[in-house]
Amino acid sequence: MKEIAVLGSTGSIGTQTLDIVRQHTGKVKVKALASSKFSQKLKEQIEEFRPKYVYVHHYETIPKELIKKYDLIFLTGEEGLLHITDLFVDLYVVGIAGIAGILPTYYILEHKKNLATANKEAIICLGEILKKQYKKIIPIDSEHSAIFQSLKGEKTKNIKKIVLTASGGPFLNLPIESFKDVSVEEALQHPKWKMGEKVTIDSATLMNKGLEIIEAHYLFDTPYSHIDVLIHPQSLVHGMVEYIDGTIISNISVPDMKIPITYAISYPDRWETDVPSVDFKNLHKIEFFEPDYQKFPLLKLAKEVGIKGEAYPIVLTVADELAVNRFLSQKITFDKIPVLIQKVIERANFGKPKKLEDIIQIMEETQEIFKQVEKEVF
Amino acid sequence: MKEIAVLGSTGSIGTQTLDIVRQHTGKVKVKALASSKFSQKLKEQIEEFRPKYVYVHHYETIPKELIKKYDLIFLTGEEGLLHITDLFVDLYVVGIAGIAGILPTYYILEHKKNLATANKEAIICLGEILKKQYKKIIPIDSEHSAIFQSLKGEKTKNIKKIVLTASGGPFLNLPIESFKDVSVEEALQHPKWKMGEKVTIDSATLMNKGLEIIEAHYLFDTPYSHIDVLIHPQSLVHGMVEYIDGTIISNISVPDMKIPITYAISYPDRWETDVPSVDFKNLHKIEFFEPDYQKFPLLKLAKEVGIKGEAYPIVLTVADELAVNRFLSQKITFDKIPVLIQKVIERANFGKPKKLEDIIQIMEETQEIFKQVEKEVF
Repeated sequence: MKEIAVLGSTGSIGTQTLDIVRQHTGKVKVKALASSKFSQKLKEQIEEFRPKYVYVHHYETIPKELIKKYDLIFLTGEEGLLHITDLFVDLYVVGIAGIAGILPTYYILEHKKNLATANKEAIICLGEILKKQYKKIIPIDSEHSAIFQSLKGEKTKNIKKIVLTASGGPFLNLPIESFKDVSVEEALQHPKWKMGEKVTIDSATLMNKGLEIIEAHYLFDTPYSHIDVLIHPQSLVHGMVEYIDGTIISNISVPDMKIPITYAISYPDRWETDVPSVDFKNLHKIEFFEPDYQKFPLLKLAKEVGIKGEAYPIVLTVADELAVNRFLSQKITFDKIPVLIQKVIERANFGKPKKLEDIIQIMEETQEIFKQVEKEVF
Repeated sequence: MKEIAVLGSTGSIGTQTLDIVRQHTGKVKVKALASSKFSQKLKEQIEEFRPKYVYVHHYETIPKELIKKYDLIFLTGEEGLLHITDLFVDLYVVGIAGIAGILPTYYILEHKKNLATANKEAIICLGEILKKQYKKIIPIDSEHSAIFQSLKGEKTKNIKKIVLTASGGPFLNLPIESFKDVSVEEALQHPKWKMGEKVTIDSATLMNKGLEIIEAHYLFDTPYSHIDVLIHPQSLVHGMVEYIDGTIISNISVPDMKIPITYAISYPDRWETDVPSVDFKNLHKIEFFEPDYQKFPLLKLAKEVGIKGEAYPIVLTVADELAVNRFLSQKITFDKIPVLIQKVIERANFGKPKKLEDIIQIMEETQEIFKQVEKEVF
């Protein structure tokens, strides 16, 4: 019986994680749940999964009778975070969206816990100070899960190329001139994947793939020159690793996050899912092509930022999250997302972070730069 | 430094194996060469690779001055076979074509040696008595190498499906009515792979894929219901394993036997080859479809024969080799290959072989049945 802690339990990854726990009772149970705030959904999760620990980031009154009824250990605040990331569990599953995942990820790794995570922002921002501890991370991102699986039993010295595939998002075939008129609703309609809002918008700008390049660099300790991106609109091939002998090991499935989440929990074993098999006999098309870097400048920027290294990946991550939020709250148009991010990157000038405090400071100062840039542009 | 023995050194697999040794001097050297007969090619191989042992199956006078000049230990006959299959080497590479590979394979496995083999006939015919020792075999067949690699670090209990791909051979799109007019030369023109004559004709009838189903059954200890065949004319995806979670791990490369041969020698490491990368950006088509079992009845027959088990796979293997030889020597037309094999299978009635002698007897009696059938049909 595996005991897991689910951080970000009410989000897209968190709820799917709990769906999987429900399907595999007898193999896995939930010891802790964590969410940014108390909600009806969290209440229902507590009632169904009966965790021992519950953490809520924004301190609010969690009903006392709930704590009493289910004999919960209720945690909040900084001290609570230190506690919730230091439990005796077999695995932490982190489904927190965006930069809110950085601190929990930091503590989980510092506490030497097993970590399965979908939070690329934390992997990127903590990369410079924690990448040596990344070998034990099981990635949940479908692409990185694919690469992780394709590296099983292989030596990193034998990697010729890591290929990340990208569906191309909802605007793959939209002319760039129309980007300014894209609605939030349209940008949230991903053709292949059901995901949280932040990552869905990142998929529409291809920033998601850009962040994944940096994520892959840190996770698999691979130079940027060995990481490629291919547009693959069918989203069946999730990742490929080419080796020095010319062999490519690749990971293929119907696009469904249930697979990489289940894998992260079952690893190194595999458990059944109800995801249907790929129907090879009725594949009408299976295409791969070069991304359009003019149309999706953030993909190129992300790789450049990754190569620059130091604090730049952190600046990129923060600027992107702020820009995406501005778009989601309809403060800026879709085409302005890359403009804002590019300007923030140009203006940033930090050294290489050496400890968590440096990262936090870089993040805070990037927010200031962002506000400044925003004022000047609009 | 790995020391290897190359059996069938002058054949297609053997010469490519030696090409790889030449490319990787410093990592691998040849301790023994074996060939069916002495030839100019074998002489050149002896001069270049300087093995300690040389085995020739058909006893002929190997020049005494050659033995003396290179201080060779020259082996032949049954005793020589026992000796050549019991050397202190790191790996035996068996590239012997057809049923001639059965005895050497038997002794190599009985002597508990490490074996990399392209000889599917031996794997099939010895399956019932030796399959427990198959776990240590590194397959050289590109499809089985692909499956072997896709199973790395995985549990066989988690396999949902093994998919063997087939290029479809030179007659994929030829109407069945024209099969009677196919010339030997046409049948030897494989569109994707350069291989020996026997396997090339087997690829044209799709019997090769049929034999590979049985080979996969024994090598990977997988029931026939879990083994599928897909026609994939581009020959880029060499094999796929689908797991219970819906994940498919697949092995992709430009079709070139150098890759699986190098892998068999370098395993568990990988060594460089000069095979070019798959050019995904210029893939025009990548197709998968169901085989035409009417047009290629041997594929269906082989699976049925595999399921029947007992001595049937041996009968199939022998009947096929005889029929292919008849076609190669222009005694029968291409369309008669399946007719003859089918009739031999119908007439065979042996029990399950329990030891090598049973297998040899079944093979001999199958030859008699074949001759009988041949007389009646023609």
